[in-house]
Amino acid sequence: MGSSAAELRASSRVSLPADQAGVRRNNLSLVLRHLRDQGPRSRADIAAETRLNKATVSSLVAELQHRGLVREAGLRQQGGIGRPARIVELDGGRVGALGLEVNADYLAAYATDIAGRVLVDRRKSFDAMTASPAESIARLAGTAQRALAEMERLGAPAAGVTVAVPGLVDTASGVVIFAPNLGWANVPLATLLATALASPPLPIRVDNDANLGALAEFWSGAAAGTAHMVSVTGEVGVGGGIIVDGHLLRGADGFTGELGHLPVDPAGDECGCGRIGCWETKVGLAALVRNAAPDLAYGTVPLRDPDERLSRVLHRAGQGDVRATAALQEVGRWLGVGASMLINLFNPRVIVLGGYFARLMCHIEATLHGELDRLVVAGPAARYAVVASTLGFGAAVRGGAGVAVEAVLNDPTRVARDEEVKLGRT
Amino acid sequence: MGSSAAELRASSRVSLPADQAGVRRNNLSLVLRHLRDQGPRSRADIAAETRLNKATVSSLVAELQHRGLVREAGLRQQGGIGRPARIVELDGGRVGALGLEVNADYLAAYATDIAGRVLVDRRKSFDAMTASPAESIARLAGTAQRALAEMERLGAPAAGVTVAVPGLVDTASGVVIFAPNLGWANVPLATLLATALASPPLPIRVDNDANLGALAEFWSGAAAGTAHMVSVTGEVGVGGGIIVDGHLLRGADGFTGELGHLPVDPAGDECGCGRIGCWETKVGLAALVRNAAPDLAYGTVPLRDPDERLSRVLHRAGQGDVRATAALQEVGRWLGVGASMLINLFNPRVIVLGGYFARLMCHIEATLHGELDRLVVAGPAARYAVVASTLGFGAAVRGGAGVAVEAVLNDPTRVARDEEVKLGRT
Repeated sequence: MGSSAAELRASSRVSLPADQAGVRRNNLSLVLRHLRDQGPRSRADIAAETRLNKATVSSLVAELQHRGLVREAGLRQQGGIGRPARIVELDGGRVGALGLEVNADYLAAYATDIAGRVLVDRRKSFDAMTASPAESIARLAGTAQRALAEMERLGAPAAGVTVAVPGLVDTASGVVIFAPNLGWANVPLATLLATALASPPLPIRVDNDANLGALAEFWSGAAAGTAHMVSVTGEVGVGGGIIVDGHLLRGADGFTGELGHLPVDPAGDECGCGRIGCWETKVGLAALVRNAAPDLAYGTVPLRDPDERLSRVLHRAGQGDVRATAALQEVGRWLGVGASMLINLFNPRVIVLGGYFARLMCHIEATLHGELDRLVVAGPAARYAVVASTLGFGAAVRGGAGVAVEAVLNDPTRVARDEEVKLGRT
Repeated sequence: MGSSAAELRASSRVSLPADQAGVRRNNLSLVLRHLRDQGPRSRADIAAETRLNKATVSSLVAELQHRGLVREAGLRQQGGIGRPARIVELDGGRVGALGLEVNADYLAAYATDIAGRVLVDRRKSFDAMTASPAESIARLAGTAQRALAEMERLGAPAAGVTVAVPGLVDTASGVVIFAPNLGWANVPLATLLATALASPPLPIRVDNDANLGALAEFWSGAAAGTAHMVSVTGEVGVGGGIIVDGHLLRGADGFTGELGHLPVDPAGDECGCGRIGCWETKVGLAALVRNAAPDLAYGTVPLRDPDERLSRVLHRAGQGDVRATAALQEVGRWLGVGASMLINLFNPRVIVLGGYFARLMCHIEATLHGELDRLVVAGPAARYAVVASTLGFGAAVRGGAGVAVEAVLNDPTRVARDEEVKLGRT
């Protein structure tokens, strides 16, 4: 965050692990990331570019090969003189990463290998709001088991799992502290899921869906790589994830971006949370459906996929239904009010609207920008864009898989060596 | 921000300057900061602790001595064997740093030397709201000239100046883009002040007052060193500065923390900015005085220092004046509403209330915490404290002086060598 090179050097010194195993782990990570980001190259190139010495690089590459993360990729003539160099490259296809999601009205699974090939991409309706936590977790475990089997079949067994949840999560323990739209409080999800999955033991992380969605937007979304970005995602609840200087803002306890319950209207409606005038009562999908098409509201008709519910509302608006049209514009107006707050506080370069907001964009863009023009304090000096997410309802699971990929890149020793796997299986 | 050591190493490699002068500058900075933070020590200790080699450290120390930033501090026996080591220490008393502030109703100057000794600390009433920008800048230049002369007299001429302004600033150019409570728009303050000060040429920075206030809180305030902190400062306007992972959050364009005009009440009063229901209309000093004591409101009585205006309101409340008491509690309630938004979005460990809010704290604390208990989504899981600033109205100027100190610590070559000074003067 604007640190000078000297500050970074000082911090890097302080945070370097004192033990040799830690140094080795960091160097394995450095070489693996280098191959992923820079492409196939010789050991000598890696040494020159990472400033590690050549003998160390050879040893690191050998270990990464044993772990199935790097492979030989033939010979390449370099600069026209001398012997051709032996090239190594990322071998990303043998290690997988799984993202899961339990949300108010669906379960989802998404898996890739380390190189980014999609192995599983599945979402199904599920009424988590009426199910007990135990029922939901049993269903989630079933979804997970099918995904894990599919990954195994495709030759990329999972090295890690991340579960996205619409609520407050203690990421260190994997406990869901509070998820009002699931009706969960203090659910030790990581432990319960690990028990349900039985074996093999897999690292299971749990994280807030909006945080994972923001990471997915940063890694692979419509504004990927934007260092200052706020991702806002609308479903029944509304969540936010904030990227600051290319990193997810986690705050002191991991509870950032809780924007669904920002009090925006003291004279507004009562929210599901019991408070008055929360932003969610203005822009949440349940609020839109209730105002646009009361006959389709949550609780009045059998559960539908959020996409389907939204399609019905958009269809009515397209047919000139006054009530649906007015409700959409009201959501656009309040999205503008909330987005202006985020711009005034975080000054992002991009706001990404995800979840159901993405499909709304073309209908509400003018209304939303009218509010932003009125409410952004810095006016045109703040150079922001508001873009629709291209990840649909899949942002959180993608982010979850991405977090599991990052865990391998950060610590390649999490992936067993070939001989360890064989020993484990005999 | 949760970066792994490997990530930090990778970034540090990327951001290391390629040129030798840059490397030298960073190493000078490293040694100077080390002496400031760790205290007097031998060249050999510095080498061991910074991992620079001994010859390099000797050369760096020699250069820092020439620049008047480091001095010999005698001999010290180390470990009981061998020759005593020659000790060097920070020589902070010969280089000064000046913070200035122009706010709605006062001008201020605050200067320290590099070691933190206070050289100048002055604030005077000034009605910037009715003065033209040119008049204000002429008065500010006069304040600056007196401070610079005093610093020279005390043996610590200024190496840099930072001006705090209650508005949006383009820090790269030193242009005040918009400062509604001063009535300024697109004022090239750095250039105009440099012209008014004539000589010697000094680096002049301009920055938002709330950002500088947050830095002062982080460096030397009641919650100094808290990595996740939001500083909220109330004067006529209301501003915020946000510390994330120990760094000031600047966002994409430098316009973060603009919380005075968050729309918190669609049915509220019109703000000075023309919008409806801004947070400033609920908690700004002008709003408090207008509601608590209309006869003392801005515009109705001759200008008073904000402290004096507030004292009159607190006095009336202390005497049981119903109107004043109710207005104070209303500010407490709305401070709670706004603070809950900041906690829900940033999840800071501490919120520091500065400016006039600090003096209000003991009167409104219960009301404020009542609102926080109701509105913080994470409830007790978010472990925050709300503390009153101890820096009074002086946070911004202190932050300004601090920024000028940091500039010297980041690049000690900004301070002329002895012989350069002599050459310049002959």
